[in-house]
Amino acid sequence: MIQLDDLDRAILRILKEDARLTISEIAERLNRPESTIHFRIKKLQEKGIIDKYTIVLGREIQPKVLAAVYIQAETPIIEDFLEKYVQHIMRTLSLLPNVLAVARSGSDGILALIGEESIEKLNRFVDETIRVLPTLKRVEVFILDEFIKGGGLVGFLVGV
Amino acid sequence: MIQLDDLDRAILRILKEDARLTISEIAERLNRPESTIHFRIKKLQEKGIIDKYTIVLGREIQPKVLAAVYIQAETPIIEDFLEKYVQHIMRTLSLLPNVLAVARSGSDGILALIGEESIEKLNRFVDETIRVLPTLKRVEVFILDEFIKGGGLVGFLVGV
Repeated sequence: MIQLDDLDRAILRILKEDARLTISEIAERLNRPESTIHFRIKKLQEKGIIDKYTIVLGREIQPKVLAAVYIQAETPIIEDFLEKYVQHIMRTLSLLPNVLAVARSGSDGILALIGEESIEKLNRFVDETIRVLPTLKRVEVFILDEFIKGGGLVGFLVGV
Repeated sequence: MIQLDDLDRAILRILKEDARLTISEIAERLNRPESTIHFRIKKLQEKGIIDKYTIVLGREIQPKVLAAVYIQAETPIIEDFLEKYVQHIMRTLSLLPNVLAVARSGSDGILALIGEESIEKLNRFVDETIRVLPTLKRVEVFILDEFIKGGGLVGFLVGV
């Protein structure tokens, strides 16, 4: 179990808001010596608490319409086939640029996050790429109209 | 509409992978002058294509169990009440640290991403915090076992 103290947490919160800040700017904000901040960040990186430094892309480059789509495969007679089939759908979806995220949900389910330029394009994608897959039991589309929390995830996931 | 050329896209892809790289390192990778890279990044920031520089937190600090939970409110007689009720649930959820993201889905729906330390804690949270809400029509839990694409979103969303 990883132990983080208040200073570690404060540093992580600051870097989450702006990872470009220099050691000396963070030191000044937290009223601690630069050497301390330097040492803590080094440790946080070494321990893998900070996994990566990245950018979030802005609204202009984000898809206009977002939806979470749940796909459930029909449970077939042969269990081994179900596993291969679900794996196949997940791999196929994950290669598409408008598919921002794909997760396995149980033995027969997939949840995918889709981004499109319009509701028409989204519907077309769901109809022509997902609903046409054979032996599906259920496809449910949850349009995500507005994020109250975590909205940055779209700019984090979107590719260029 | 924002126009990005191949160089812009190449820079953005590199920064998505590692936002700590210096201008001179990016210039070397792309075999372009530093002044060009500097100018392009400046423009990408000014135009808001690069919205933010941030960190992704590692696995040790991420919740062990993830679920997308869909919550649908019963459509009541008074429409104004539905709107206020959905807003109230979204605000309440978004204040909780184990709720990583909350999005509105249609007039009566909410999709929330929940992170917990165990499946027992997740079930308890759903039972004791969500299912107890009055006048719900439907609560459906999609456990996310494994991400095939976009898995970094957990380390991006998790707080400290």
